Amino acid sequence: MPLSPEQQAEIDAQRSAVTPTLRAVSPGIEQHLYTAHPVLDHGFVRVIDYMGDDAAICQAARVSYGKGTKSVQNDEGLIRYLMRHWHSTPFEMCEIKLHVKLPVFVARQWIRHRTANVNEYSARYSILDREFYIPAPDALAAQSEVNNQGRGAALEGEEAQRVLRFLTDDAMRAYDHYEEMISQDGQQGLARELARMNLPANIYTQWYWKVDLHNLFHFLRLRADAHAQYEIRVYAEAMCRIVADWVPFAYGAFEEYRLGGASFSKSMVDCVRRMLKGEAVTQETSGMSKREWREFLDVVQD
Amino acid sequence: MPLSPEQQAEIDAQRSAVTPTLRAVSPGIEQHLYTAHPVLDHGFVRVIDYMGDDAAICQAARVSYGKGTKSVQNDEGLIRYLMRHWHSTPFEMCEIKLHVKLPVFVARQWIRHRTANVNEYSARYSILDREFYIPAPDALAAQSEVNNQGRGAALEGEEAQRVLRFLTDDAMRAYDHYEEMISQDGQQGLARELARMNLPANIYTQWYWKVDLHNLFHFLRLRADAHAQYEIRVYAEAMCRIVADWVPFAYGAFEEYRLGGASFSKSMVDCVRRMLKGEAVTQETSGMSKREWREFLDVVQD
Amino acid sequence: MPLSPEQQAEIDAQRSAVTPTLRAVSPGIEQHLYTAHPVLDHGFVRVIDYMGDDAAICQAARVSYGKGTKSVQNDEGLIRYLMRHWHSTPFEMCEIKLHVKLPVFVARQWIRHRTANVNEYSARYSILDREFYIPAPDALAAQSEVNNQGRGAALEGEEAQRVLRFLTDDAMRAYDHYEEMISQDGQQGLARELARMNLPANIYTQWYWKVDLHNLFHFLRLRADAHAQYEIRVYAEAMCRIVADWVPFAYGAFEEYRLGGASFSKSMVDCVRRMLKGEAVTQETSGMSKREWREFLDVVQD
Amino acid sequence: MPLSPEQQAEIDAQRSAVTPTLRAVSPGIEQHLYTAHPVLDHGFVRVIDYMGDDAAICQAARVSYGKGTKSVQNDEGLIRYLMRHWHSTPFEMCEIKLHVKLPVFVARQWIRHRTANVNEYSARYSILDREFYIPAPDALAAQSEVNNQGRGAALEGEEAQRVLRFLTDDAMRAYDHYEEMISQDGQQGLARELARMNLPANIYTQWYWKVDLHNLFHFLRLRADAHAQYEIRVYAEAMCRIVADWVPFAYGAFEEYRLGGASFSKSMVDCVRRMLKGEAVTQETSGMSKREWREFLDVVQD
Repeated sequence: MPLSPEQQAEIDAQRSAVTPTLRAVSPGIEQHLYTAHPVLDHGFVRVIDYMGDDAAICQAARVSYGKGTKSVQNDEGLIRYLMRHWHSTPFEMCEIKLHVKLPVFVARQWIRHRTANVNEYSARYSILDREFYIPAPDALAAQSEVNNQGRGAALEGEEAQRVLRFLTDDAMRAYDHYEEMISQDGQQGLARELARMNLPANIYTQWYWKVDLHNLFHFLRLRADAHAQYEIRVYAEAMCRIVADWVPFAYGAFEEYRLGGASFSKSMVDCVRRMLKGEAVTQETSGMSKREWREFLDVVQD
Repeated sequence: MPLSPEQQAEIDAQRSAVTPTLRAVSPGIEQHLYTAHPVLDHGFVRVIDYMGDDAAICQAARVSYGKGTKSVQNDEGLIRYLMRHWHSTPFEMCEIKLHVKLPVFVARQWIRHRTANVNEYSARYSILDREFYIPAPDALAAQSEVNNQGRGAALEGEEAQRVLRFLTDDAMRAYDHYEEMISQDGQQGLARELARMNLPANIYTQWYWKVDLHNLFHFLRLRADAHAQYEIRVYAEAMCRIVADWVPFAYGAFEEYRLGGASFSKSMVDCVRRMLKGEAVTQETSGMSKREWREFLDVVQD
Repeated sequence: MPLSPEQQAEIDAQRSAVTPTLRAVSPGIEQHLYTAHPVLDHGFVRVIDYMGDDAAICQAARVSYGKGTKSVQNDEGLIRYLMRHWHSTPFEMCEIKLHVKLPVFVARQWIRHRTANVNEYSARYSILDREFYIPAPDALAAQSEVNNQGRGAALEGEEAQRVLRFLTDDAMRAYDHYEEMISQDGQQGLARELARMNLPANIYTQWYWKVDLHNLFHFLRLRADAHAQYEIRVYAEAMCRIVADWVPFAYGAFEEYRLGGASFSKSMVDCVRRMLKGEAVTQETSGMSKREWREFLDVVQD
Repeated sequence: MPLSPEQQAEIDAQRSAVTPTLRAVSPGIEQHLYTAHPVLDHGFVRVIDYMGDDAAICQAARVSYGKGTKSVQNDEGLIRYLMRHWHSTPFEMCEIKLHVKLPVFVARQWIRHRTANVNEYSARYSILDREFYIPAPDALAAQSEVNNQGRGAALEGEEAQRVLRFLTDDAMRAYDHYEEMISQDGQQGLARELARMNLPANIYTQWYWKVDLHNLFHFLRLRADAHAQYEIRVYAEAMCRIVADWVPFAYGAFEEYRLGGASFSKSMVDCVRRMLKGEAVTQETSGMSKREWREFLDVVQD
């Protein structure tokens, strides 16, 4: 359970304080505000704040004085047009702020997306909690045999047991020693900024993360993708569900033109043209490498 | 008058639509929402949306579950501490979206601040209005005699008259020709994306501009400064008044540690130390150039 | 002719000063260094400096100690893989610095690409030259009848003559008045920062522009595209030729996977699949709007 | 010893390959190229590439055709002026690329500087080395008693011994288990992307890091500061020595106006003014909090 009773009470208090505003309000995301959506064994994603809605995207694209909406249908059409033709700035006009609890090795991947604002819990200043990510049995995957950067089927039997024992025992021992090192009971106590270095990368950290919708879509396209590491993908999927409720038109366009779409190379486009004319193109005549040809077939065949 | 009756009606409609929200609300800025604050002869600044308030800065700095506020006094102290010690990320957790109408030559300076989101009215797609910035008599300044990048006293008499005539006549003629070139009345009509090139840099454009509070403070420090060009400074000053109402603690800290403060070089600090010990330091013994010494005296003497 | 004899002499002096270095050197771009490649009637693009080459992209991707090159063939394969799978960071490890002379209305489009470093010639501080972009006859295009943001065929006859006369006369008159206003001959002289506002958007400005290869490719994909305005596209094309000489493998991959490729939406991928199975898909059964269907056919048919 | 013989041979090979170039060359930094400057027990900083020199800063500031240098003295004066008046863009025109080996907990602080390009060694794809940061005895500091985010004197005696034993033993055991988990000897082998989570934050990682000079100065101002954590400060100090050789004028200006200077608040400036007039200002009459007053005295008294 990720939340203490005190934390839950703080969240409940925030969810009960309704205030009138003149700003654009998105009813779909209001229902998510402050609530912790669980991810992995101890993690979560919480919406802390947001700016804008579908109409705000159109309003910015039109640089309009009022709501700028002629009709809801117009708005959806404009949003799809903007997404299809890679107009990024109107989507930057929406912003979301999340509170995320996540393992450190996931945080290290996440932070590589630089166009966002981050405040992380400071282990120089504060003491970290004893919470570690231990994979569920079906997530305890073997190294892929075909892809250096991937994973295969779940480990089984004794090997799985041993891995879980290593992960659990090493985490607990490292945390015990962390506590012993910083303790000021009968000793000076090691500086927190040093003691933290003993903690493994599956310990949980947390941060406030704020990003605009365009850059969030970029993040989601890469991290909700099947090739992303499972442990970050589940965060991306939780965010996809939130965004779908927040800006349904924009999310629909994102699914149509990014998530569900595909990038075709010059050779791929050429092959499609030839195949549609009836030519029987093979890898040898395609101009593609074997690997690219396989990737191409994965897309154009079910 | 910058607004047409239709535009004013759209603004009034937005100001009358109150909706409940669970988000943080800043009463001080709600009163500004949508209203056009006039700047220069035809320009304005309007707040379209905002995210966060003073408490949100502290909440992010503490990565807290609830409001994270122990007391209002604590919040102010924390905000001053963060500003004093150059902690920028908590201030990035607030965001503001403005609709700004401004002359093109001001827009060209403004856009050099890159860490912001912009949607500008498109003169490729749409037709610009016949609105030009013509300086008020007291803003019609002569070239500075001491500073290549500055201005002196206001022009007077016939010279002022001639300048105003040039600016006005050339703008009107350029706009007449712009209209004639794009007209499709009895002719093909020049492409808008080409015709716009005939228009001078005092024509007004408009954009939606969204920025986080940290980067806004950086903008304001440079553009509300006495050395900034008057025509952008008046926009910065209008924004300062809005920010003071939005996040009063943060704005107070900004005034104390940035706007009203000063950067002292190593030599300046050294001189202050020596002077406080009673030494009569002169430019010759200061280690500073004449120009730096003058800048130093400007700061430490009233 | 864009260059004065003095400017040409400065460029020649730079081209004759050869210095040994331990850094990676790209012979293909050394031949371009400092030379002004003409663009439009008075503009140019000059390479001032660069960092890295094709091997440097691989070296960074492998975080290697030495050159990190196993073989030239390996490098090309790795670069194509990185481009195909949207790995952006290795391409960010190359950097180029250009000196560009361009009309102000082109500069205004260009500057919207924010992830770059810019130093523009200051019209607050200095006096602009009397140089204006006047379109060549075949670039004097009519407004498009099907696309608000586009252009049609070239204007002809008397209409073309009148447009050229407007553009030329207004530019000359505006510049005459600019000079009269800033003159300090027998008068105070208007501040330069104000006088510049009388100048139209076809006046030439210049800047130093520095960008990494990933962001340059993003710029080129948008601005070398057939839908980009002609006046910025010719700059993008001049840069494409330079980049092809600088990092030939990376540029080849960019052509294959970006410039010559296409983004397929979910519905487009679905249609290709059905068509390849022999189904006769029509716009009505495609799930696409008429406009999207037309865009789709443009891609999959020659 | 941070480098294997193979790595050292690769570095030597790079240092022996001299090539002529037309670009700006900085002799001071050429002598550093590729060499690994040791930091901490196993870390290093190596210059891989650079763009520009002191003259290039001036050339960009002047948007000049040739070297743009009137005299070396002029260049130094201009650079000091630009630094003093917060002109950032000319400094962005220089760029440096470093190969850095550093503990993960240092990397996590470092990466918060977002305006830079990074390629990190991938522990999803590759296997990490058995190298951990173990503090030297004088760096084994106690928690500060006055500052939550700081450290006090070095631990001594048995406490120090126990800390070193914990850090060393836990690291070795974690690495043993990491190796056992990924081993494919008689078992499937855990995916590398999962196994890495068992490794503590003092393990070494490495990356290529590329940054412009303006943003590097910003990094160095924060991280070479006495309040920065020792383990990142030593990297900043190593970089300061490199930058001083690369762009001596710019580094001198950085020392004078940033590193050695101080930010004075409005109240501090006011106090200096009053004190210079002979008034005996105390904390009570200063308008500052006790903490600020102490910080103020630290600056103005030796």
